[in-house]
Amino acid sequence: MSTAQDFNEERAGLNEIIMKYAGKTTKRFFNLDTNAYKEGALPAKTKEMLGLVASLVLRCDDCIKYHLDKCREYKVSDEELDEVMSIGLIVGGSITIPHIRRAMKFWDENK
Amino acid sequence: MSTAQDFNEERAGLNEIIMKYAGKTTKRFFNLDTNAYKEGALPAKTKEMLGLVASLVLRCDDCIKYHLDKCREYKVSDEELDEVMSIGLIVGGSITIPHIRRAMKFWDENK
Amino acid sequence: MSTAQDFNEERAGLNEIIMKYAGKTTKRFFNLDTNAYKEGALPAKTKEMLGLVASLVLRCDDCIKYHLDKCREYKVSDEELDEVMSIGLIVGGSITIPHIRRAMKFWDENK
Amino acid sequence: MSTAQDFNEERAGLNEIIMKYAGKTTKRFFNLDTNAYKEGALPAKTKEMLGLVASLVLRCDDCIKYHLDKCREYKVSDEELDEVMSIGLIVGGSITIPHIRRAMKFWDENK
Amino acid sequence: MSTAQDFNEERAGLNEIIMKYAGKTTKRFFNLDTNAYKEGALPAKTKEMLGLVASLVLRCDDCIKYHLDKCREYKVSDEELDEVMSIGLIVGGSITIPHIRRAMKFWDENK
Amino acid sequence: MSTAQDFNEERAGLNEIIMKYAGKTTKRFFNLDTNAYKEGALPAKTKEMLGLVASLVLRCDDCIKYHLDKCREYKVSDEELDEVMSIGLIVGGSITIPHIRRAMKFWDENK
Repeated sequence: MSTAQDFNEERAGLNEIIMKYAGKTTKRFFNLDTNAYKEGALPAKTKEMLGLVASLVLRCDDCIKYHLDKCREYKVSDEELDEVMSIGLIVGGSITIPHIRRAMKFWDENK
Repeated sequence: MSTAQDFNEERAGLNEIIMKYAGKTTKRFFNLDTNAYKEGALPAKTKEMLGLVASLVLRCDDCIKYHLDKCREYKVSDEELDEVMSIGLIVGGSITIPHIRRAMKFWDENK
Repeated sequence: MSTAQDFNEERAGLNEIIMKYAGKTTKRFFNLDTNAYKEGALPAKTKEMLGLVASLVLRCDDCIKYHLDKCREYKVSDEELDEVMSIGLIVGGSITIPHIRRAMKFWDENK
Repeated sequence: MSTAQDFNEERAGLNEIIMKYAGKTTKRFFNLDTNAYKEGALPAKTKEMLGLVASLVLRCDDCIKYHLDKCREYKVSDEELDEVMSIGLIVGGSITIPHIRRAMKFWDENK
Repeated sequence: MSTAQDFNEERAGLNEIIMKYAGKTTKRFFNLDTNAYKEGALPAKTKEMLGLVASLVLRCDDCIKYHLDKCREYKVSDEELDEVMSIGLIVGGSITIPHIRRAMKFWDENK
Repeated sequence: MSTAQDFNEERAGLNEIIMKYAGKTTKRFFNLDTNAYKEGALPAKTKEMLGLVASLVLRCDDCIKYHLDKCREYKVSDEELDEVMSIGLIVGGSITIPHIRRAMKFWDENK
């Protein structure tokens, strides 16, 4: 079982290696990335769902897991999650299915 | 100026050609596609924003225009739209910028 | 060695998790997906090769393995397989090579 | 109306500009590309359908048109074409629909 | 003929529309994007070639034109350009060819 | 720790399986691929950085590792590497970050 905690710890460790080499552009991008998901005209919960569907159609497992963990934190329900994933499935096609498989396993084990 | 009305009429005309040749799979997919954006656990407005960000990161101008037109219909504000587009920009990178250019022109001319 | 049997069993297990959360859109998509590859105007064998080349250029290892297993079932020969893969390689470029590596290992071990 | 002839002429003109600047790698790639679709263990007709579905899921209108023209030459039927396109639609999702619209218009006008 | 000047003017006009709606994230991203290509450990010329090959494999005509114009400004030779494009062609495959066609026409007409 | 040596050995082993099945197209493509990165109008070092940024924006871990190993061989400095990666990050967006994480770990452990 791959827990959300393991995932977050590994992610943090690797970010440290990035920061060891990062120049201004990389550092500023990381700041921008964090700020883009903050509460604004849209609720933070909606923004995480936007990040999730974008990650699904671009088919990035790590990005999907990250946003799933945030969706859990913001109390996205099972029904809401299914609707986000199904929009990603329709837009992105069956090629997203293996990512949905791994996503729902992570959701099922960590909610 | 490319109006939303011109866009929708051309789209409808081309869909007729698709349907002239479409077998069961294609027809059913079109139904599924329509149904996926209907009000459910998530509001239809949220679903259109999900469709928009997915279309932006996959860089499809026609899909972007379609969802922009729906976003307008569901009263997405300028501020909300900017936040959706900026999440797409962060996730998908500068390669999305030419699509954001054409999207904001369409939004500006049709709202 | 990753056998086709292991692959299929893991896949089935994960599909069960998807179905636990799946609403109508997701369920219907899965049906559509199954039906699209059935014998029609084109032989099922040709359709599996179409699914394979599409999976290769979109670079999805799980989708590739699934279609390779079906290609084996429909008696695609080594020469035919090489020609499918080489069209994917030409269309999709060297970025597909790591996927071809894993694909040919799977083919070599499971035919 | 965009005829297949116009399309082929423009394509040939642009290829001449490429060849004016092309070094060995580019020239050899063009040869490889031509040879990959020649009759082999698989019929040329099947190879064109493989090229078509790959072009559809990667969403390249010019590549789609090129293979549609070849499919017409090899007597792909309307039903066969619909099945190729529907596999591309299922694998690649609704993001392929605008390309299917333009493809079917080209098919409808040039067959 | 599409001149580099026309291209740059249209681009500037559309950027104004973006900026009319842009919040902090979008504005900062545009700054980052500009800064990333400035002379640093790597010469600005090399950075433009990096931007060009990235734009080619992601298949964005506007991005390609932008970097071609910068490459011309930094005195990239025809031979150097062909080598950049041929690496993009090998990595990204024949699906990049229609973009190379339009790129080389733009290069040929504007150098 | 995944060493560059382990990576290269596994890669060579899998290439042997590919070659066992490879027809002319596949074999010639592999030759072209090797030749494209040879010293020419552009230095081999620049070409490896071009291959690296292309691999990053297309998000292929194996391709990234391959070019990182070559960049090390051609004495790309930490600062130069950060600038290549940051151009990829800007062009390709946050979806490239998990690949940058794995890339920088590989670089950190093998330089």
